[in-house]
Amino acid sequence: MPAAWAQGTAAWEDQTKLPRSPEIHPDRTVTFRLFAPGAREVLLVGTQIDAATHGPKALTKDDKGVWSVTVGPLEPGSYVYGFSVDGGIKSPDPANPDMEPRRWGQTSYLEVPGDKPLAQQRRAVPHGTVHISAYDSKSLGMTRSVYVYTPPGYEQSTAKYPVLYLLHGAGQTEDAWISIGRANIIMDNLIADGKAAPMILVMPYCHLVRAWADEPKMSSAAADEAIEKDVVGDVRPLIEGDYRVLTDRDHRAVAGLSMGGGIAMSIGLHHPELFSSIGSFSGSVRYRPELEKVDGAALNAKYKLLWVGSGTEDPHFDTNKTIADLLDAKQARHVFRTSPGAHVWPVWQLNFSEFAARLFRN
Amino acid sequence: MPAAWAQGTAAWEDQTKLPRSPEIHPDRTVTFRLFAPGAREVLLVGTQIDAATHGPKALTKDDKGVWSVTVGPLEPGSYVYGFSVDGGIKSPDPANPDMEPRRWGQTSYLEVPGDKPLAQQRRAVPHGTVHISAYDSKSLGMTRSVYVYTPPGYEQSTAKYPVLYLLHGAGQTEDAWISIGRANIIMDNLIADGKAAPMILVMPYCHLVRAWADEPKMSSAAADEAIEKDVVGDVRPLIEGDYRVLTDRDHRAVAGLSMGGGIAMSIGLHHPELFSSIGSFSGSVRYRPELEKVDGAALNAKYKLLWVGSGTEDPHFDTNKTIADLLDAKQARHVFRTSPGAHVWPVWQLNFSEFAARLFRN
Repeated sequence: MPAAWAQGTAAWEDQTKLPRSPEIHPDRTVTFRLFAPGAREVLLVGTQIDAATHGPKALTKDDKGVWSVTVGPLEPGSYVYGFSVDGGIKSPDPANPDMEPRRWGQTSYLEVPGDKPLAQQRRAVPHGTVHISAYDSKSLGMTRSVYVYTPPGYEQSTAKYPVLYLLHGAGQTEDAWISIGRANIIMDNLIADGKAAPMILVMPYCHLVRAWADEPKMSSAAADEAIEKDVVGDVRPLIEGDYRVLTDRDHRAVAGLSMGGGIAMSIGLHHPELFSSIGSFSGSVRYRPELEKVDGAALNAKYKLLWVGSGTEDPHFDTNKTIADLLDAKQARHVFRTSPGAHVWPVWQLNFSEFAARLFRN
Repeated sequence: MPAAWAQGTAAWEDQTKLPRSPEIHPDRTVTFRLFAPGAREVLLVGTQIDAATHGPKALTKDDKGVWSVTVGPLEPGSYVYGFSVDGGIKSPDPANPDMEPRRWGQTSYLEVPGDKPLAQQRRAVPHGTVHISAYDSKSLGMTRSVYVYTPPGYEQSTAKYPVLYLLHGAGQTEDAWISIGRANIIMDNLIADGKAAPMILVMPYCHLVRAWADEPKMSSAAADEAIEKDVVGDVRPLIEGDYRVLTDRDHRAVAGLSMGGGIAMSIGLHHPELFSSIGSFSGSVRYRPELEKVDGAALNAKYKLLWVGSGTEDPHFDTNKTIADLLDAKQARHVFRTSPGAHVWPVWQLNFSEFAARLFRN
């Protein structure tokens, strides 16, 4: 090893060795590349990518140590992916600046454009702002951060806005709905198209600690409950103090994906005085016992919109369907939104778009 | 490969295989671990880590496929690091949620606590807010984003604040001063201790495009000039429209690290009508020819504070020293701040802290 490391320009930072990756071709095939001269096996992995390529796809190495594979054509849309090198846990693509900085197992992000702009693609419309607020959670005894989206014109206006609390899934962090879900861009586009009311999105962190290895030993239900306390008792006052928000129940909703969908249902069912609409996108169903206790007339009286969504290929599809069946049996008004796809972002983005479009319209 | 991938829970996402990493021991030694059963060589790499460990450090594999190494004791402070597997470009630690999502070659982030809190560590003081504003750059013809820090109390106040434009280095992105530099936390602490005036930090993106592979072919000087136009002509009006900022030159400063330090000097020297103080932390010196043209009396009349900083082990130390020598020869008032360290965040954080503490004090 030469003295390069001492100079802050170590050999492993030689960017001349950085191949272009991903490269999207006009026919929507995509080439992925990784410089790893000593590796024995490099796999392209990632839920949507795996579905498109029928499983992890092996890359092959050229004489310069660059591994590559071309897949597709891929359907227009967004994909998360990574590389698994020599049987390891997936790593992000070092050449791709767009990524999801997850709680563990960070992944890279790719948008394959189509003939018309994707819902999550930037268009020439007014842009909202994303804020990262820090707060001292009394219930959890630590400083945490929450992402907040304010709609276009917020800074110039004096109006107060309705609020949707939007929760991430297991393994993700408070930025997930922004960095990967692109909820801010989706909202900008919906508002520009007159398809959604301008609203504020509040995206709290839904794990108790940062690192998975530090997670306190407790049941998932107990962890959900601690997060509920933080969201209702610590995040909500922060938002209502620092942002111009409407504070009546008619102008407050809660939704989430996967683990966050279950927490959203719990929060909404426990606090009808605070929330008028609830959405669970491929959600966990730990709230089921409580839902069973409430009768349909009460649900209809309390909530404007109860939303259960799931991709039809989601391994949790049947479980989510039992919730929809339960609501049917109770004659409780609800939406059960099914769409093609597994436990993946495109399904959550579709559910978010349609759920948000129905909120705060009167 | 079993059907696990189709269920969105692929084998490479088996978190039971995720080892604890990094693990900081009471004696400030640190153990790093990576699950990579098929790898032949795993190195711990990263400029500050390399300096502390006298070069990339090899990990050894146990019988479960987990590689590990214990290093240190490390000095209290923050470190960036990654793993190089089988000779590849470094990857972040998949078990560590704290990272720098760089333009390429993302790295992980580690804080080794000492007996007293680090300048960049969260304390029980009022917290500012970080904002991500999107804007359509007319000069660059694309939508870009800029990070903005507002000090504690901004949301409740109607006051206008002074502004420091703070630029990142090559390879980094607009979040670098936040995600790794922790400039927001440093400012919170400085303000709480009465060591700095409350101010707004504006952190634009200083590369022309997102991916390194898409960079247009032009000289570094031409790229700097394009960024200068964007910062002065597009970012500045956005900030002055959307944030409560003071807009006279006495309340505007510009600084940056490495590439961004050079751009900051160019911007400041070109626009004395806009900026009253300039800081370059281990900066590139492409502005040198222009500096040579200005006489010392003019510099003294125009600028309250000219700051040149460099780590004494920085490979660019001598180059930065020639700038300080040039200012000496011109009898131009300036600070040349040298401190132990290479081309690394601790040096930039120290320079930022001391530079910010001297701004807007009267």
